[in-house]
Amino acid sequence: MTGRFITLEGGEGAGKSTQLKALAQRLRGTGLEVVETREPGGSAGAEAIRSLLLTGAEDRWNARAEALLFAAARADHLEKTILPGLRRGAWVLSDRFLDSSRAYQSGASGLADADILALHRIGSEGLLPDRTLVLTLDEAEAAARAAKRDRGAADRIGARDTAFHRRVADAFRAYACQEPGRIRLIDASGQPDEVTARLWDALSDLMP
Amino acid sequence: MTGRFITLEGGEGAGKSTQLKALAQRLRGTGLEVVETREPGGSAGAEAIRSLLLTGAEDRWNARAEALLFAAARADHLEKTILPGLRRGAWVLSDRFLDSSRAYQSGASGLADADILALHRIGSEGLLPDRTLVLTLDEAEAAARAAKRDRGAADRIGARDTAFHRRVADAFRAYACQEPGRIRLIDASGQPDEVTARLWDALSDLMP
Repeated sequence: MTGRFITLEGGEGAGKSTQLKALAQRLRGTGLEVVETREPGGSAGAEAIRSLLLTGAEDRWNARAEALLFAAARADHLEKTILPGLRRGAWVLSDRFLDSSRAYQSGASGLADADILALHRIGSEGLLPDRTLVLTLDEAEAAARAAKRDRGAADRIGARDTAFHRRVADAFRAYACQEPGRIRLIDASGQPDEVTARLWDALSDLMP
Repeated sequence: MTGRFITLEGGEGAGKSTQLKALAQRLRGTGLEVVETREPGGSAGAEAIRSLLLTGAEDRWNARAEALLFAAARADHLEKTILPGLRRGAWVLSDRFLDSSRAYQSGASGLADADILALHRIGSEGLLPDRTLVLTLDEAEAAARAAKRDRGAADRIGARDTAFHRRVADAFRAYACQEPGRIRLIDASGQPDEVTARLWDALSDLMP
């Protein structure tokens, strides 16, 4: 594989979607092919699973079924979108990937991290990103940004309570500590172009 | 748990659905509560996953995504239908369960049996049936029965080729050999009431 696989992670409202677009534009400016994708979803099958995951009552799925559905969607996303992109040399940028499953299903919902990693090995041969950028905000700023968003648009996972989202943030910090080479915490406060510059710096060693 | 969990397994056309109904009726005649269910499906969430699994092109999902979707459906089916039935003392009869995933996704599609069992541990705490009855037919009779069925009704798994279905049958025989206490091979040839009598005999030690 000659491309690079970069994932953006973080809680709700940290600006992942905006930053992914900005990063993609800047990478394209250097002449690289860039694939912008997201999870859950990113391929036809995975998007069908996404609609099962994000609609319906908050207790529609138990944590185990949810983790299996995310892993199934990821297996499809990897085969249909991520690997073909990497094989032709593209940079593939994904809004969420494995570490969100770890943070949301194990860190915050009580499954074992080892089980989430086992699902990833079985479903996706354990493929890890070349770099994972975790956008971090302190709790007060995250809450302020979340309040500005359309609350009607919150899905069944985004709508969970503050304690849940705090456990998610703690889990991301722990993973960054365990894998400092792959996972970098990026301060998401300040203006969007300042954040993009921080993300760009955190990719400099991967540039061709 | 005070109820009994019985699964019927076997290839296409062996008569599982017919036999499950006959067995349920005979058990009800003894005064037992019986829950008739099926996989993939058997609960609202699992039926939604079933429609993803059984519709669309034969190559819609790779074997890994398919195994994860079956495991997700099973986790939901177990929580919403099977365990509540067993807890109130019912006999729960399921048309297919774990051993179909083993036979179809590992025995015939190339995943490791250990991986299917790992998914079952993670998704469903490894729960096994009290008894699994595998309906067996020789290949010529299975082909003759299949030819009589409406071919337009074949789903994306049932429509696979003869070599695939032979690997499925071989896998079921191997599991019965490994777990003779739980898994019994039942000759499905002859008249339906003869087959029902064989199934009934294979449950006699579990009767109250």
